[in-house]
Amino acid sequence: MLLEAIHHQPKSHYAYAYDRETVHIRVRTKRDDVDHVHLIWGDKYNFQPETITTQEMKKVASDRLFDYYETEVKPPFRRLAYAFRFDKDEKQVYYNELGFKEGSMNSSGIGMLWSPSGMFEFPFLNPVDVNEPPEWVKDAIFYQIFPERFANGDPSLNPEGVEAWTSDAEPKRDNFFGGDLQGVIDHLDYLQELGINAIYFCPIFEAFSNHKYDTIDYMRVDPHFGDNELAKKMVAEAHKRGIRVMLDAVFNHSGYYFPPFQDVLKNGEKSRFADWFHVREFPLKTEPELNYDTFGFVASMPKLNTEHPEVKAYLLEVARYWIEDIGCDGWRLDVANEVDHQFWREFRQVVKKANPEAYILGEIWHNSNAWLQGDQFDAVMNYPVTNSILDFFAKGEIDANQFMGRIQEMQIAYPQQVNEVSFNLLDSHDTPRLLTVADGSKELMKLAALFQLTFTGTPCIYYGDEVGMDGDHDPDCRKPMVWDESDQDRDLFTFYQQMIQLRKQYRALRDGRFRFLSAQEGTAYTAYERSDDKNTFIIALNSSDENVQFSLCDLKDGTYERVLIDGKKENETWNVKDCSLNVELAPFEALILKNKV
Amino acid sequence: MLLEAIHHQPKSHYAYAYDRETVHIRVRTKRDDVDHVHLIWGDKYNFQPETITTQEMKKVASDRLFDYYETEVKPPFRRLAYAFRFDKDEKQVYYNELGFKEGSMNSSGIGMLWSPSGMFEFPFLNPVDVNEPPEWVKDAIFYQIFPERFANGDPSLNPEGVEAWTSDAEPKRDNFFGGDLQGVIDHLDYLQELGINAIYFCPIFEAFSNHKYDTIDYMRVDPHFGDNELAKKMVAEAHKRGIRVMLDAVFNHSGYYFPPFQDVLKNGEKSRFADWFHVREFPLKTEPELNYDTFGFVASMPKLNTEHPEVKAYLLEVARYWIEDIGCDGWRLDVANEVDHQFWREFRQVVKKANPEAYILGEIWHNSNAWLQGDQFDAVMNYPVTNSILDFFAKGEIDANQFMGRIQEMQIAYPQQVNEVSFNLLDSHDTPRLLTVADGSKELMKLAALFQLTFTGTPCIYYGDEVGMDGDHDPDCRKPMVWDESDQDRDLFTFYQQMIQLRKQYRALRDGRFRFLSAQEGTAYTAYERSDDKNTFIIALNSSDENVQFSLCDLKDGTYERVLIDGKKENETWNVKDCSLNVELAPFEALILKNKV
Repeated sequence: MLLEAIHHQPKSHYAYAYDRETVHIRVRTKRDDVDHVHLIWGDKYNFQPETITTQEMKKVASDRLFDYYETEVKPPFRRLAYAFRFDKDEKQVYYNELGFKEGSMNSSGIGMLWSPSGMFEFPFLNPVDVNEPPEWVKDAIFYQIFPERFANGDPSLNPEGVEAWTSDAEPKRDNFFGGDLQGVIDHLDYLQELGINAIYFCPIFEAFSNHKYDTIDYMRVDPHFGDNELAKKMVAEAHKRGIRVMLDAVFNHSGYYFPPFQDVLKNGEKSRFADWFHVREFPLKTEPELNYDTFGFVASMPKLNTEHPEVKAYLLEVARYWIEDIGCDGWRLDVANEVDHQFWREFRQVVKKANPEAYILGEIWHNSNAWLQGDQFDAVMNYPVTNSILDFFAKGEIDANQFMGRIQEMQIAYPQQVNEVSFNLLDSHDTPRLLTVADGSKELMKLAALFQLTFTGTPCIYYGDEVGMDGDHDPDCRKPMVWDESDQDRDLFTFYQQMIQLRKQYRALRDGRFRFLSAQEGTAYTAYERSDDKNTFIIALNSSDENVQFSLCDLKDGTYERVLIDGKKENETWNVKDCSLNVELAPFEALILKNKV
Repeated sequence: MLLEAIHHQPKSHYAYAYDRETVHIRVRTKRDDVDHVHLIWGDKYNFQPETITTQEMKKVASDRLFDYYETEVKPPFRRLAYAFRFDKDEKQVYYNELGFKEGSMNSSGIGMLWSPSGMFEFPFLNPVDVNEPPEWVKDAIFYQIFPERFANGDPSLNPEGVEAWTSDAEPKRDNFFGGDLQGVIDHLDYLQELGINAIYFCPIFEAFSNHKYDTIDYMRVDPHFGDNELAKKMVAEAHKRGIRVMLDAVFNHSGYYFPPFQDVLKNGEKSRFADWFHVREFPLKTEPELNYDTFGFVASMPKLNTEHPEVKAYLLEVARYWIEDIGCDGWRLDVANEVDHQFWREFRQVVKKANPEAYILGEIWHNSNAWLQGDQFDAVMNYPVTNSILDFFAKGEIDANQFMGRIQEMQIAYPQQVNEVSFNLLDSHDTPRLLTVADGSKELMKLAALFQLTFTGTPCIYYGDEVGMDGDHDPDCRKPMVWDESDQDRDLFTFYQQMIQLRKQYRALRDGRFRFLSAQEGTAYTAYERSDDKNTFIIALNSSDENVQFSLCDLKDGTYERVLIDGKKENETWNVKDCSLNVELAPFEALILKNKV
């Protein structure tokens, strides 16, 4: 048994409160190294051989090097002491906070070799510390809107020199097409028809650029988009249709024309806003080197000093206003990992007070555990999952086994409730579009989207993907939305519509259990199961251009029906016998089976 | 190279801000498995072969299974992207957030195999997030007072039926000896003579028991101890002598006679305090099972609902009052890990606002990283170090190599600034006394104390240890202080006095570098070095009853002088040549050498 591979960290994603009565415990071993893992647990104040419980843990994930085991416990007094036992052949190894010990079974079948004080502890499950993301997010299917490019509903607000909204329009870093909030309102019925039930808006506040990430006034809708009253109306109209609204909070930095920054530029250290930014010396200059902190090295995006009481008060009022007064349902936090943790802690208090059901989503491209302890964000944008899906389905750069490893690594990287509301996007205003990443292959695009829409976590569709829009890196991915039906890929639209409908119909596809059924080395096909107490889905996807044939095992016996997606196949019935099923897939074929109930 | 053993976690004790400009990065490998480890780092927005730095990391700790490497970085723009390179023979392995890759050196000597977006990140060093414990704690030597047993300065306050303050007095769970605050004031000169510069008080608030952990009124000094005015005077008198005062905050639970709990007992769910506790059903009962949450299973210590706004407001006012109005310098937080994190976050804001230099110390007996991220505690009571010192010096249960492993494991378990102010106690009101653990051996006791007083972290001496008091588990460890000099062990007092003086004189012994020089398997002697830019101490301790002889190497050449402790030896001069030194120690002998400057 390789002791160096065994890992556990108390009070982390290896041991966390899932809800107000349940603790999840995980432990890692070397891959394929042990036969069984048991959790030995009891009350920390009554940890005796006769009061402790030994329960087997389940292998829930594997990656290249490791296996991960998990189990759940509902401690009657909300506090836990625990240790692990690893079995391999005839050998048993015990593991607690003091380290490892080879053990033996005592008469009651429990080997206790140390004093209770050496056990790992989950000291007390206090409800307020539980990370409890809003329930609605589990059921949400987001649609991302880049407002300047979605729809022009009020030409009277057009910026000067606006370009024509044509299907061959060329988006540039600095041109405008006249998208606005009225345009969104006008197309809410379209979104309802598509089936999505939440919108993620890129910034809508007054700003200089077309992307609006360089805010001038956080309390005001950009005049080219409309005004605050119209925003309120838009939110109300969305809500009428069962659609939630999430805004983009660009609190890491302001825009160049943010009045306080202009004041600092003009008045230097005498400005009453001098401390609102991170200035290393006055006057400000950009050559030969920036002498103030910015987003990246972008001189026009000065980093806000979110430790300053006035800045904090201003931004927290922004956070409150759009939720409480305008009625928005959440915030997506731009460059979230560069703002101080203390600010986000206070932000959470303000936002959840304004609306306990508000969703707080951090834009972080890396491991984000430090922000997911229940005191800051509900979830983060799940780029590691994005990349895994693209690498396997769209690019064909990894095989099914690597795909499984990377997906499962992420499943284990965060608490389960975080995974359930993780923001699973496949593309955005910051990346090439899905169809372009898939090198124009609609088949591959559909497979990637199908996985996204049947996987754990909250999917988000980037505007226009559903009608076949392509586009490379920014600004090419920010083309005006194609509204002319003759230019839209209606087959793709129907596909998205059906998949969204399916996800909305079955809870199993949203927060049901997920497990891989097939993910072999060297293959470009995979299969997985989604299930809850009522429904079981078996999904098999072939992203190769060849016919493939493989068998799945460890299934639940019974009759399954093919779910009709894409209208390609007649209704079919499949039988799982002896827990196994043979599957044949044509090139790029997707098979979705559901148990007959 | 064993990849399964390699471990790093961004934004944890493996990657943290040490101060406002310095980031410490650590990584773990299998013990004795690699030749060199390098950190490759650069700005996250400018991570190019020509802008990144490759710097060697230093092996700073080893335990049974692992080696730990560390280095520090001062990123010019306060943000970092980084990866690791492990060298073994001719092989190089690179490690970043995406995993491991075997590498090769490119022309510039830096192998870059992935895109910058796959690097580990320290996204931004925001000052407010840095855990910056108060400077004074690094210089503090605490003395723990159990007030009912330290000194009776005002017999008029004696509880009824008080016992005589004699050296053969028998402490019981429920008897009283009349200790009070006037007694402490009367003996501040004694404490000054001993040399300590901080007092940790067990609870002084009104309570029922002799230990006062069952609070009745958090805003009032126990009438048997004095009153709030006297507490204020005591703090002022202590401050006059350069002695700080830390109180005990028992916020996890109240006492049985806490009026709100009495009200709930009487009025049940109709009580206006019904939600102040964690009651599962009304009326409260203790048989056959407690139906409300308590500390442990102690019915008379009901757990406070620290999520309740009124409870929070009350306790936070308590936290503020004793710091701001009475002038205390810190809080020791009883049963700190069972109170919710959110409460402690608000507690920190209130306390640091009242006095930014206040010390916040959690009582946690286990790994405490979840409380040491800068948002809750400055440090915790360092029981793992306590146990390691006792096991090696006092009990002889582990050898020097195991001792080193356990000490170094703790050095690496927390950020360095936390280690610098960790509360290193050897005994307390909750444990047998040091002399008793050492089975009455004064020699072993001195070795343990000598290590404690020359080790990283803030030492604390339990009242009376310095005059030879012994005592087994509670209540035996709570005997009345021995004040009759003829009953005091004055040799021991002088020893403590000298060691305290030495620690106060040399910064190297407080927050200087610490490294083991000798810690071999099967031996009961050890040696280590403490050093800063000016002074280097070589300390060798023999806890066996035999003469031992061993050589130390990798030292700094030069002349060293023996520091006279215990007055046993004449002044001696030692020469370190070729970086090595031969040491001979008599049974239980301690050798302290200091470089001649």
